[in-house]
Amino acid sequence: MIERVVINVMIQSFNFARIPHIIFGAGKLRELYKIFPKFGNNILIAVGGSSLKRYGKWDEIISILEDKSINFFSISVSSEPSPALIDECAQEFRSKNIDLVVGIGGGSVTDAGKAISAMIPKPDSIKNYLEGIGNKTHDGKKIPYIAIPTTSGTGSEATKNAVISEVGPNGFKKSLRHDNLIPNVAIIDPELMISCPTSITAACGMDAFTQLLEAYVSPKGNPITDALAFSGMEYISRNIIPACSSGASNIEVRTSMAYGALMSGITLANAGLGVVHGLASSIGGEFKIPHGVVCGTLLAEATKMNIKVLEEQGPAGKRALKKHAEIGALLIDDKLKGEGQIDKYCSVLIETLDSWTQILKLDTLGKFGIEKDDVDKIVENAGLKNNPVSLSKENIKNIVMNRI
Amino acid sequence: MIERVVINVMIQSFNFARIPHIIFGAGKLRELYKIFPKFGNNILIAVGGSSLKRYGKWDEIISILEDKSINFFSISVSSEPSPALIDECAQEFRSKNIDLVVGIGGGSVTDAGKAISAMIPKPDSIKNYLEGIGNKTHDGKKIPYIAIPTTSGTGSEATKNAVISEVGPNGFKKSLRHDNLIPNVAIIDPELMISCPTSITAACGMDAFTQLLEAYVSPKGNPITDALAFSGMEYISRNIIPACSSGASNIEVRTSMAYGALMSGITLANAGLGVVHGLASSIGGEFKIPHGVVCGTLLAEATKMNIKVLEEQGPAGKRALKKHAEIGALLIDDKLKGEGQIDKYCSVLIETLDSWTQILKLDTLGKFGIEKDDVDKIVENAGLKNNPVSLSKENIKNIVMNRI
Repeated sequence: MIERVVINVMIQSFNFARIPHIIFGAGKLRELYKIFPKFGNNILIAVGGSSLKRYGKWDEIISILEDKSINFFSISVSSEPSPALIDECAQEFRSKNIDLVVGIGGGSVTDAGKAISAMIPKPDSIKNYLEGIGNKTHDGKKIPYIAIPTTSGTGSEATKNAVISEVGPNGFKKSLRHDNLIPNVAIIDPELMISCPTSITAACGMDAFTQLLEAYVSPKGNPITDALAFSGMEYISRNIIPACSSGASNIEVRTSMAYGALMSGITLANAGLGVVHGLASSIGGEFKIPHGVVCGTLLAEATKMNIKVLEEQGPAGKRALKKHAEIGALLIDDKLKGEGQIDKYCSVLIETLDSWTQILKLDTLGKFGIEKDDVDKIVENAGLKNNPVSLSKENIKNIVMNRI
Repeated sequence: MIERVVINVMIQSFNFARIPHIIFGAGKLRELYKIFPKFGNNILIAVGGSSLKRYGKWDEIISILEDKSINFFSISVSSEPSPALIDECAQEFRSKNIDLVVGIGGGSVTDAGKAISAMIPKPDSIKNYLEGIGNKTHDGKKIPYIAIPTTSGTGSEATKNAVISEVGPNGFKKSLRHDNLIPNVAIIDPELMISCPTSITAACGMDAFTQLLEAYVSPKGNPITDALAFSGMEYISRNIIPACSSGASNIEVRTSMAYGALMSGITLANAGLGVVHGLASSIGGEFKIPHGVVCGTLLAEATKMNIKVLEEQGPAGKRALKKHAEIGALLIDDKLKGEGQIDKYCSVLIETLDSWTQILKLDTLGKFGIEKDDVDKIVENAGLKNNPVSLSKENIKNIVMNRI
């Protein structure tokens, strides 16, 4: 008989929100045309991505819609959506009896589509419903929404929030959020990602990995988010370097990245995020710098700091350290066995993230005009979200200073 | 820098149906009372389980519903639901403007509630909509449905089908199935499972483990079902022996079993099942024997046969063998590294399942009146479902003969 030492980690109570109906695989964009009739014949499509247009995909979509006599409007989203953009679109289409909203593009576009689908049924500005900005709560009533990502990054195709940004001195980056805003359907077609340029692939891939890692070590996590985050990290860690080099045109590599990004959306929606995303909100409100770049450039430093502070905590930090070590072991296809290996695998995690920062040539914040004098204000406005350990302002400042 | 050999397994295209809104944790039955107002004030409750009644839980529920002036009807389900039971209930409540159906009990009860919620809006018999029996397809229109399991077994709280049985010489065990029949909400409260007797805990736990294993090795699996099935098997394998012995009253143990059963429902709904469930359909239609007992008693023998036939296939069987070996490694908290370890971990898997069969004293089929002469007919009516390898009638016969 097989002997086994049983070590249970008690499962804490949890809720798990619904996930979209997922249609995943190369060429699956085609399924979109089969789905339309289920919702109605009057469609609003948010589209961004010069890359989608450059490679002829958008023309192809339009010609199919015309062939099928589907009545559609399209709007273009060229940067992270602002309240003004959403309000303008919602107002324009409020009277047009839209049956379905579709967002095809990167995170900005899929978030914009999500916000528009939620604001068409409301009479007023999205500002009134943004967390930390408005004083109204969205009730979840919306036009059905299909998200089709063209980057492997935010996982917005599976989340319940849309991030809205106003950039500038009084800028902010805040969420419209409701369980019911999870897209009705997410179509993930890795063929749409083949044309994504290297720098965006790297930034988006690091954003997704950050979300998976932060969800995995979050105290709000549960066994479902743990299993899915771990699976997502396995695929992204094996493919992020190839996706940004020799494997950029390899559909298998792009498929793995797309899967990891999808998992990051599902897990962050249910387990929350940590200090990297706390800093990203603060930085993104004030500086024009892509979200993925902020996350990617900060992840290694933030992880080092979290591990250091957790180690200082002694026994209280052990559980979260163990989870970091599990990720480290995964990165070299190993498995953590016992507490004696925690140090070793935490080092592997840090070493790997550092090497990605080098190999992927992740830009520093300084490249986008952020200076040392800006750091105090950034830290002041940064929340910890569901970080696995409490960090002092000094700790957080150190993270940022190392990436100026 | 860390060197890593990258071995991708190509992710095939997949769809993933929705999952219920999950409310999980000890004491969470209470959330039910908060949810009622969202659906309406006219509730139909399907309840079974003498154990629920014996331990006072049912009286407690009734008194809370009365306190809150919630108008409810209740029906009792005492065995696997028949077409006659569903038709009778659907007809009785068709005119009563039911806003919500709730099923509290084992798999028979949660399946009965699911079927009733789907048949109230239809004018005719469920027989017309059963797979392989009727010639109509259910359109998914139903009364909203909340499933609350009191055993850790079928995972019916997360599946899109209700199993309906007619027992006897022309009997059958067939499904009413539609994506939209996935319960709107699943409340999993392990406190409700503490009073579940040992023999039922063992049979249900083995049913759940069978579902997880069959989904994990199914060719229809995808990385999401893989991750969740693996996670479910981890928790069940660590707790099934304690749950049936010294840990029967331990809420941590019961919580782990409940989690594993929930995962089994989610994964089987998306990845399908194998030969054990093919046999369970055939046996369950003709003999009065609990579904969990059939699965539990056949799993070790069926797994041995699958591994043997896969080994005979040479390279073609490698991928599925690897997945069996991954489960074997999990069972001793290890991780498969390379093809050289496949034999070793497949043996661990077989050895562990054999030891569970012994320790849990799983009944043979003979105990329920099945004789050697019945086996040919059982095999004739048994489908392979999504078994990882094709088995001959002789192979299937061997599986059953070893458990008469």
